[in-house]
Amino acid sequence: MTGVRPWRTASGTFAQDTATVAQWLAAHRATVESSTVWSPCSPGDLLSALPRQLPTDVCDLNAMLGELEQFVMPGLVRWDAPGWFAWFPSNGHPHSLLGDLLGAALGQQGMLWMSSPACTEVEIRTLEWLRQAIGLPERFAEGGRGGGVIQDTASSAVLSCLVAARDRSTDGRAREEGMHAVGRLTVYASDQSHSSVLKAVHLAGIGRAQFRAVPVDEHQAMEAAAFRDMVEADIANGCTPVFCCATVGTTASGAFDPVIDIAKACTDYGLWLHVDAAWAGTAALCETFRAPIMAGADHADSWCFNPHKWMGVNFDCSCLWLADRRPLINAMSITPEYLRNDPTESGEVVDYRDWHVQLGRRFRALKLWLLLRCTGVQALGAMVEHHVELATWLAMQVQDSDAFELAAPRSLGLVCLRHVNGDDATQLALDTINADGRFAATHCRLHDQLAIRIAIGTLDVEHAHVEALWSLLSASSPS
Amino acid sequence: MTGVRPWRTASGTFAQDTATVAQWLAAHRATVESSTVWSPCSPGDLLSALPRQLPTDVCDLNAMLGELEQFVMPGLVRWDAPGWFAWFPSNGHPHSLLGDLLGAALGQQGMLWMSSPACTEVEIRTLEWLRQAIGLPERFAEGGRGGGVIQDTASSAVLSCLVAARDRSTDGRAREEGMHAVGRLTVYASDQSHSSVLKAVHLAGIGRAQFRAVPVDEHQAMEAAAFRDMVEADIANGCTPVFCCATVGTTASGAFDPVIDIAKACTDYGLWLHVDAAWAGTAALCETFRAPIMAGADHADSWCFNPHKWMGVNFDCSCLWLADRRPLINAMSITPEYLRNDPTESGEVVDYRDWHVQLGRRFRALKLWLLLRCTGVQALGAMVEHHVELATWLAMQVQDSDAFELAAPRSLGLVCLRHVNGDDATQLALDTINADGRFAATHCRLHDQLAIRIAIGTLDVEHAHVEALWSLLSASSPS
Repeated sequence: MTGVRPWRTASGTFAQDTATVAQWLAAHRATVESSTVWSPCSPGDLLSALPRQLPTDVCDLNAMLGELEQFVMPGLVRWDAPGWFAWFPSNGHPHSLLGDLLGAALGQQGMLWMSSPACTEVEIRTLEWLRQAIGLPERFAEGGRGGGVIQDTASSAVLSCLVAARDRSTDGRAREEGMHAVGRLTVYASDQSHSSVLKAVHLAGIGRAQFRAVPVDEHQAMEAAAFRDMVEADIANGCTPVFCCATVGTTASGAFDPVIDIAKACTDYGLWLHVDAAWAGTAALCETFRAPIMAGADHADSWCFNPHKWMGVNFDCSCLWLADRRPLINAMSITPEYLRNDPTESGEVVDYRDWHVQLGRRFRALKLWLLLRCTGVQALGAMVEHHVELATWLAMQVQDSDAFELAAPRSLGLVCLRHVNGDDATQLALDTINADGRFAATHCRLHDQLAIRIAIGTLDVEHAHVEALWSLLSASSPS
Repeated sequence: MTGVRPWRTASGTFAQDTATVAQWLAAHRATVESSTVWSPCSPGDLLSALPRQLPTDVCDLNAMLGELEQFVMPGLVRWDAPGWFAWFPSNGHPHSLLGDLLGAALGQQGMLWMSSPACTEVEIRTLEWLRQAIGLPERFAEGGRGGGVIQDTASSAVLSCLVAARDRSTDGRAREEGMHAVGRLTVYASDQSHSSVLKAVHLAGIGRAQFRAVPVDEHQAMEAAAFRDMVEADIANGCTPVFCCATVGTTASGAFDPVIDIAKACTDYGLWLHVDAAWAGTAALCETFRAPIMAGADHADSWCFNPHKWMGVNFDCSCLWLADRRPLINAMSITPEYLRNDPTESGEVVDYRDWHVQLGRRFRALKLWLLLRCTGVQALGAMVEHHVELATWLAMQVQDSDAFELAAPRSLGLVCLRHVNGDDATQLALDTINADGRFAATHCRLHDQLAIRIAIGTLDVEHAHVEALWSLLSASSPS
């Protein structure tokens, strides 16, 4: 019965095996600057290499690590490289990884307070610490009508809030009778908002035709006046506006929607205001950058950012705060007999299963706690400042250049640039970056022109890396 | 700048810190039989003990572990105890934990094939290995029209499939125009089905009023004839039946719905058939138990089980297979400019972000792979057999007892029992189990009577633990 009762038979080796894996990981990590950032694999390469049938023999850990070297390593993308400027960073700080290991190995399943008081109450308090650290208004504090919860991703968070808003606006009829009984509900976000908003509109049964992509100004920020006009036009046409997602730091160019003005229209017409600060929220750890990130947060119904992007909590960890938790709980709560228990019935406890789509949940708060406690807010803030300095330097080079120009104002650590000769030249420059091996960058379109996104934010990036990127660009594209 | 560029400043300590954590975890694990299974905490105990403000100083790892001892340990529930019989097991095998650590530390974000060929192709193949290992029909194989994907939970899986079914049945009109334009869609599952089905009905905008809880027979299995009658009545009333969830191993008593008969009605009336084998699916690793679990699977549109329950993959890991992936991808796919890339446009690759609600995803396949490869299917099957033997023994004691009786037929490792004197006596027996300290059990209601659920399935449970439970019950409740 090898492999059964493993803690008894293998408890002597767990600590040792984990140490072996950690050494292997440290060695892998040491190759980061000598590896190509993008995987050299073509589609199907790994599938061709891997056996089609699961081998029937079992192997030991060292053999397993050998299989990983052979079959997995070639397919890795080095999101941890200091030359990683693609999409947004997805950092995993060592302190977070230790917390993740602890959370996994303690084996808690936090669906109910009763199923793990530790998973529940540590999450409540860790989210309160984080709220204080980023300066999110008291309106979202622990102990008030709202509170915080860890979701897996901002996509799940916006879906949860949209469903809560949908049900709140229809007095629960959308939930009980169904969407066919409540007419057309409309949802708003800028045409630069994240795709997850439209996806949520679709999942919640509202229909893509009822999603209003509000136009943006020349800096890619939502036109608040256009938003108000669209809401009024929809009401005149018999629709019920229910939800607006304001973005603080758009995915393409890092633009900040004017949340204060958006909030006024939401208040006037009873819309739920959700703020998506998935990437930019981390910068609020730093007082220097906080004010614009938090502008208008005082009027939001929900506010979300992803510590698994820039902050260093390894994926997944998306933090959502509610001003009032009741609409969310009303939307999510179903209690079958087998989940009934005295603490829940008492109403004294938080049961986090009622705060999201999933029933089960892992102990994610530990990785956040270890990062906050062992790295600390000050060091994380200094990291953000460092990244913004690098981005500022790069933006200055672009502005001084004859070949390139900024495609949008620099936003925190994000610089969008394009070649002055148009899309073909910009594409060539992007291809040069991605063919080099040391760097990764991705693109967006702004004002219908191609732009290269340089998102500076990995844990190890230094001036030399950004300088090398700029040298490559300058050399490849003389004006 | 302490704490910034941590791999450079702390890479020397990562391996060592991880080893320290692993030793601490092994020591914690060694306390499992001397700790109470339920947490002794009352609501708010941990919140009162934890500082209200995040301490401004940073601490080292040893101090952090001290804080965990002080503030977290008292709030743990020992899901890993051999006396854990509550809900279902949530096992984290050491091999899985090593895979989870690897997956976290390699820092992959698998939203697109391009963002991590490794995360994508290893998941494709691992799900194919697992499909072979449980004997799921060829219909779901890699390389066909369908394939497998790891979701976080069965709740997310059923929501994803329901939305795909909703859109398929309405030719995409539910997605594009919204649910208000497509009339009443109806959804079916037995009145013993998991609460996640009703939650999905609600989230997808179908409305709880359109959820049909199909009655069950004396063994808690769906009445297939009643299901067919309800579908026909709904059609006669102008509804469109779209989705049925058949449960193989209900949460309350482990009942198996008659999937073959249910499938016939689904085929006749064009419903999507989803099979929820979240708990029982693990037993299909063992050929002895496979046939009833897979009965009818050949006719399902989607089939789901949770390796994070009984199988030993630490939470979260829910595996979903589709017979045809297109309706799911049609339902989930939105491609903004910043996610466009050549491999996706070529159509040659899988982009797993289009297979679920979330955009980002962690590298979960590694923990499944390490368990399959280092522990092996044979040992996992032997574990299942061992648990079923223990449950069989317990069920025999109950049957031979004057004080207790089976509340439902034993199903695999699950025994539901009640006191012959009725609910008060059953509750007293349940309270005795949970007050003892060594054990945890939860309840359900069957035929409107209270029953104690004894779910046998932790990694370390042995005959002695089940015998001790039975001694306690017998002694406390003389007939």
